[in-house]
Amino acid sequence: MQTVMLEMAIDTSVDSLGPCRVPSPYRYQRFTADSERVLYDGDAGRVSERLRAALPVTSFEAAGPRADIFFDPANTKAAIVNCGGLCPGLNDVVRAIVNGLYFTYGVKRVKGVRYGYAGLNPALGLAMQELTPEAVKDIHQDGGSFLGSSRGPQPVPVMVDTLDREDIRILFCIGGDGTLHGAEEIHQEIKKRGLRISVVGVPKTIDNDILLCARTFGFDTAVGEAVESLRCAHAEATGTMNGVGLVKLMGRESGFVAAHAALAEGDANFVLVPEVPFALEGPRGLLQVLETRVRNRGHALIVVAEGAGQSLFPDSGRDASGNKKLGDIGVLLRDRIGAHFKARGLEGSVKYIDPSYIIRSVPANPNDGVFCQFLGQQAVHAGMAGKTGLLISSWANTFVHVPITSAIQRRKHLNPDGDLWRAVLESTGQPEHMLETP
Amino acid sequence: MQTVMLEMAIDTSVDSLGPCRVPSPYRYQRFTADSERVLYDGDAGRVSERLRAALPVTSFEAAGPRADIFFDPANTKAAIVNCGGLCPGLNDVVRAIVNGLYFTYGVKRVKGVRYGYAGLNPALGLAMQELTPEAVKDIHQDGGSFLGSSRGPQPVPVMVDTLDREDIRILFCIGGDGTLHGAEEIHQEIKKRGLRISVVGVPKTIDNDILLCARTFGFDTAVGEAVESLRCAHAEATGTMNGVGLVKLMGRESGFVAAHAALAEGDANFVLVPEVPFALEGPRGLLQVLETRVRNRGHALIVVAEGAGQSLFPDSGRDASGNKKLGDIGVLLRDRIGAHFKARGLEGSVKYIDPSYIIRSVPANPNDGVFCQFLGQQAVHAGMAGKTGLLISSWANTFVHVPITSAIQRRKHLNPDGDLWRAVLESTGQPEHMLETP
Amino acid sequence: MQTVMLEMAIDTSVDSLGPCRVPSPYRYQRFTADSERVLYDGDAGRVSERLRAALPVTSFEAAGPRADIFFDPANTKAAIVNCGGLCPGLNDVVRAIVNGLYFTYGVKRVKGVRYGYAGLNPALGLAMQELTPEAVKDIHQDGGSFLGSSRGPQPVPVMVDTLDREDIRILFCIGGDGTLHGAEEIHQEIKKRGLRISVVGVPKTIDNDILLCARTFGFDTAVGEAVESLRCAHAEATGTMNGVGLVKLMGRESGFVAAHAALAEGDANFVLVPEVPFALEGPRGLLQVLETRVRNRGHALIVVAEGAGQSLFPDSGRDASGNKKLGDIGVLLRDRIGAHFKARGLEGSVKYIDPSYIIRSVPANPNDGVFCQFLGQQAVHAGMAGKTGLLISSWANTFVHVPITSAIQRRKHLNPDGDLWRAVLESTGQPEHMLETP
Amino acid sequence: MQTVMLEMAIDTSVDSLGPCRVPSPYRYQRFTADSERVLYDGDAGRVSERLRAALPVTSFEAAGPRADIFFDPANTKAAIVNCGGLCPGLNDVVRAIVNGLYFTYGVKRVKGVRYGYAGLNPALGLAMQELTPEAVKDIHQDGGSFLGSSRGPQPVPVMVDTLDREDIRILFCIGGDGTLHGAEEIHQEIKKRGLRISVVGVPKTIDNDILLCARTFGFDTAVGEAVESLRCAHAEATGTMNGVGLVKLMGRESGFVAAHAALAEGDANFVLVPEVPFALEGPRGLLQVLETRVRNRGHALIVVAEGAGQSLFPDSGRDASGNKKLGDIGVLLRDRIGAHFKARGLEGSVKYIDPSYIIRSVPANPNDGVFCQFLGQQAVHAGMAGKTGLLISSWANTFVHVPITSAIQRRKHLNPDGDLWRAVLESTGQPEHMLETP
Repeated sequence: MQTVMLEMAIDTSVDSLGPCRVPSPYRYQRFTADSERVLYDGDAGRVSERLRAALPVTSFEAAGPRADIFFDPANTKAAIVNCGGLCPGLNDVVRAIVNGLYFTYGVKRVKGVRYGYAGLNPALGLAMQELTPEAVKDIHQDGGSFLGSSRGPQPVPVMVDTLDREDIRILFCIGGDGTLHGAEEIHQEIKKRGLRISVVGVPKTIDNDILLCARTFGFDTAVGEAVESLRCAHAEATGTMNGVGLVKLMGRESGFVAAHAALAEGDANFVLVPEVPFALEGPRGLLQVLETRVRNRGHALIVVAEGAGQSLFPDSGRDASGNKKLGDIGVLLRDRIGAHFKARGLEGSVKYIDPSYIIRSVPANPNDGVFCQFLGQQAVHAGMAGKTGLLISSWANTFVHVPITSAIQRRKHLNPDGDLWRAVLESTGQPEHMLETP
Repeated sequence: MQTVMLEMAIDTSVDSLGPCRVPSPYRYQRFTADSERVLYDGDAGRVSERLRAALPVTSFEAAGPRADIFFDPANTKAAIVNCGGLCPGLNDVVRAIVNGLYFTYGVKRVKGVRYGYAGLNPALGLAMQELTPEAVKDIHQDGGSFLGSSRGPQPVPVMVDTLDREDIRILFCIGGDGTLHGAEEIHQEIKKRGLRISVVGVPKTIDNDILLCARTFGFDTAVGEAVESLRCAHAEATGTMNGVGLVKLMGRESGFVAAHAALAEGDANFVLVPEVPFALEGPRGLLQVLETRVRNRGHALIVVAEGAGQSLFPDSGRDASGNKKLGDIGVLLRDRIGAHFKARGLEGSVKYIDPSYIIRSVPANPNDGVFCQFLGQQAVHAGMAGKTGLLISSWANTFVHVPITSAIQRRKHLNPDGDLWRAVLESTGQPEHMLETP
Repeated sequence: MQTVMLEMAIDTSVDSLGPCRVPSPYRYQRFTADSERVLYDGDAGRVSERLRAALPVTSFEAAGPRADIFFDPANTKAAIVNCGGLCPGLNDVVRAIVNGLYFTYGVKRVKGVRYGYAGLNPALGLAMQELTPEAVKDIHQDGGSFLGSSRGPQPVPVMVDTLDREDIRILFCIGGDGTLHGAEEIHQEIKKRGLRISVVGVPKTIDNDILLCARTFGFDTAVGEAVESLRCAHAEATGTMNGVGLVKLMGRESGFVAAHAALAEGDANFVLVPEVPFALEGPRGLLQVLETRVRNRGHALIVVAEGAGQSLFPDSGRDASGNKKLGDIGVLLRDRIGAHFKARGLEGSVKYIDPSYIIRSVPANPNDGVFCQFLGQQAVHAGMAGKTGLLISSWANTFVHVPITSAIQRRKHLNPDGDLWRAVLESTGQPEHMLETP
Repeated sequence: MQTVMLEMAIDTSVDSLGPCRVPSPYRYQRFTADSERVLYDGDAGRVSERLRAALPVTSFEAAGPRADIFFDPANTKAAIVNCGGLCPGLNDVVRAIVNGLYFTYGVKRVKGVRYGYAGLNPALGLAMQELTPEAVKDIHQDGGSFLGSSRGPQPVPVMVDTLDREDIRILFCIGGDGTLHGAEEIHQEIKKRGLRISVVGVPKTIDNDILLCARTFGFDTAVGEAVESLRCAHAEATGTMNGVGLVKLMGRESGFVAAHAALAEGDANFVLVPEVPFALEGPRGLLQVLETRVRNRGHALIVVAEGAGQSLFPDSGRDASGNKKLGDIGVLLRDRIGAHFKARGLEGSVKYIDPSYIIRSVPANPNDGVFCQFLGQQAVHAGMAGKTGLLISSWANTFVHVPITSAIQRRKHLNPDGDLWRAVLESTGQPEHMLETP
């Protein structure tokens, strides 16, 4: 077994600022040892086969309060920053971090960085904001971002200057792929300078597509909101002759939101995701299959992830966060379906709904609320123990430390051969392949 | 007083098929006499002044069950049609009519016309559907339209042929301005042919802009849903530097939805409605006022009715329902604000939400549910009594019969000098006039 | 007509502190004159008959901003108190009053009285709280009471001493029957002492049973919440053999909540209200009728207002607010139905839901939110104009001033011969009379 | 490794009716082999330690479609039964099973057993009901139980007679501990008789306390609903002087609902669960700690699981399902707190909410909806493959087959030394021990 545990396919060793010599003030004496590790559950938790075949399996350091910590709470000042687009639960994580620092460790100086990394660049004149349990008491009941957010990078040396000058000892970075790349660069710069500042990431992606993270906060809330839009689109489709409801959901590189929402709502006839290519034209293409469906049943419901069908567009460069600019597949489908119906003499209409801003700006639902609270608490435990360059991840009801570098190698994708996609195909009844040539 | 009551500014006399000679089977012997009349409450219920000045006031025939009815329930067959766009409560009204016919009067033959007036044109091959209490038991819990709807007219003689051939004695028409025009034409054609078919309208407009109707069903639900979008837009606006949330709501000729939603949500800084013109440019135009607000406060929330600011567009003709095609004020504002901020070197962003399809396709809320039940019951009472060419209206907790011709003369508008708009101005703090020249 | 207007059945003349000599700073110059009056719409808005018969009709002074006001804003200090049980919208009214005083009139000193009239009794040591627009910005999103509430009276001279000592010029009293009696006593004591303090009431009753008030805030929200409980009880009833769902709703002396909720939900088979007596036993009593229903259909849903069936209990005295202590009709019905079924060998079960605390503590829905905003604004206009001893009421889309003494004579009741109860009987199909002897 | 996998602490081998010789008609050729196994993730997924120490770990057979199946779809008839109390998602599971049988395997004869095991006892005269995709199309949108449910056992031989006579080949049993015990007895009787009938369980417990099941359906929905009650109780507590909100939630033997709801809502000061004993009296008992909290902060919120504090009651026997009858801890706390406050001269009030019927009868939320769909599909795959005497369980994003006997040995409990309880203690700030003697 020992061998199995050491032969890792990816780097799972977490960086730290040094040995922990301060006894933890943690009230409930249930500590987690650095040696506790959690098997990585892979795509579907089926590590057993690897174990039986004596193949290496991956495990990560368990998150949790350490008996000894690195930072003396009395002398510690922490800061929290969140970047990128809105995501349900942002405020919950901020609140959980503030409460954890205050009540669990007695760290009384916590700063909120305004508007993402921009708030770490003095040139933009955004003063940090004092965060206390009183100040954050009710923020989890609000959607949006209490701290404010922004997209795009800021000069790393400038940001580290700010942290150093402000005497920040732990920086909590809540954000997605771009943010985590930034956090890693900040971590490297800190290391280079020999500063004793811990950088702890909390992964944020409403698409749920960060590698090595079975789940990210806000996803469950987003799916719940998306279901409402699907219901409305279904009502629109059935309320008119040959009506087509079309809903574009988030999912730049992965179709998790679209797949889950379609499964939950139960009326979708087509789910289009980035991981599964499809053609519009041809006898097996979407337009023909859709036309047949509508002629037979009088209506149809299509759910499309924003990153689906991008081969139908020319390359459009990248946005401020460094993400590939996407063609608007919702508008394209709306227009192409309308034109196709017209050409075929099928009187019908497409009702197109793009609910993105509505989905991402609502408060976290209770499930995400609990999850965010755990994420925040574990982030605090990691930071106080001097862990750095890591993010808090979760699977199988437990929380782990994952090196940021390991998580940002590439995105997580929906597996077209896995249980989730299979369930979608069963639920929709859509053809497995909608391509010009079989 | 008698004089006062007779000197009416508008026609309030309701047409009927003939004297009522069949005793009503109505179980609760609380009948309404044709002579009962209800004062019209005008814009704000202030008829007192007219009374004091001995000026004529308007009253309408009270709705309610009559002691004697025109149609013998055993030999009566009724049909229900709904037309135009979706509106919360459509199914509730259908259900209430079916239940009222069955349980109150014992009329067991009720037909549902599929897809609006199209279902009365045999050329389209849409068979009517049997409606029973069992079939409609749960439809009020669904949004959309159980019967299906469509826009646009069908040939009136053809529709009346269908009614005659199918032996329909009461036609319930649920719909807006276009539908009611159609219902009036059907009524006139029936009269011309000397048929004994009653035509009873139930006014439907999510905009709440039908004349002589203090309230229309679905409006309250729509406002409630719109509030959710405003909350999201506010979260988007505050979650980013210099963020502007922009929500386009329904309201082709009137700003009732926009005004109520803004009042209920409480964060809007600008409400733009068709009844109050505004300029974009100039020192007192929207763009400059908005820029100032955003520079001072960091964010702003704009609510715009779809029919506002139409003078900014060229004339675009009319759609299938005969409604004026509107320029897309939401997209125009989004683009113009973005360009203005860019030109002024103000780094910010506009988050634009167009929730129309989401708002109109949800189930009716409890308040609208109760209202729809009353509308349906009163429509049944009117139809069974042989009243025709009328619609069911409501004000001051009572229901009345209004001749369709009187209600479709023109649309109802929000009064820029009334209580509602005053409350909006107080709540938003927006300037009373945003025009190029004062 | 003049004669008609003067011959009033009840006192409609509003007291005031004196002539208004301060020009209003109101920004939108749309003032309401004291001479504007609004006809009282009675039970069903059918004043026409009275007019025709030359009988006296009642009208009230229209609410709204006056061109001249009594208090100089710069020297005015106001206080707000809310008493009695929780009611959705309490916080909305407080917020609207604060904003109206600040932004419309420039009154910057507004105090919140803590925990009802208790906060006006220095013996209890409850300091008043500073209210600013910033402090009340988001309180309308929360249920409960921001100020805190309490039941029961405090010594009137002590309370007036407090108002005088604190230099309060306008006291806004939000509350129900007991609170309004208290407000009237305060008003009389102020008058007796010759103080210049205005007392303005905002009627609060979730039961919607205050005389001369067509609608009170929170009622619509309460009905919406009650509908959820009815849905659950219906699910419980149908999910088991011979299941009876039983829901007790608020309504001490009136069945408005029960009637509306039953109409909105649509599954209730029995609605029991204080205004309509019923027997349990006997061939026409509830138990037998219910048993028959359950044997035929397998389940039943009963909605009972808390004040219904009180003749089944001995007299139990009065509570702290002076209200009659009610027997628990929900528990009685649950037990009696269970015993009856057992005695008759009918295997079934009663699922009893008492959702009162859940219903009354939620935030106001958008409809109530708008209504509260108007109430608050009109209360401010009345107070600034020196009106006193009045409450703000509303009907037919307008707002009026009603002398408190007129409103607290007795409670408003549901009319068993009116449209609402008729609709309930039609919707439930319950017998009109469930009495031991016909 | 092989050794590790075989040395199991509990029985993990699933019974089956015989070898699978019918090729599966499954359309998407992604089959799961019987040899695929999933490691059991234990309390917190930390199997790594056992692996490192070469200790035995537990794994279960992976659920999923098999390449060969046992039953020929053309000749297969299946039945579905659900028993016990209502639980969100009951209808979703039924729907998923029906759809899976029809669309995935072409099994067209599916029967619904009415009112639990009672429907398998002909003496009660409850005919089975035909289940088709059309019949179950929308049932997932309703709470309650479409099939009806009941508590308590029926004679096992009689039930097996019914299955045999009706030619049922697969029986799907949805239910909790009692139901699963019944399913196991049915399975043993079938085995004894040598019948070829598969028995597949879907575990149902809103308490989430079935052993070897990381999650059961309805739990997430229940937590979400419970949060609403906590919000209301908090509003009640803060809205009055020295107010105590008290909410009793489900959890007969485990505190999962109470713990999650308290974490999600964020205002609870005390969470009382069956797994953690507490005293009422004494200087460290609940009453004194609560009094101190209320005196300091003016209000408090208590969440209590129904099975907590049972040592405060005498033993009361067992109910129809064989469950221990519980003392009503909610009522006891309400009364004892009230008496304690009175005795201490603390004027305050306890607002007690028991929302159980409201929580369990709502429709499943989207998260549970997706989960139920997977459960139903996997149950169908297991049944068609002739697996029997098993239930479908899930952890770590995958689904497994667990022998019923292994799951019903005892209940799953919240670990007072685990992450969940630790998070609760941190969130509430309540003392770790509230006992008479430390």
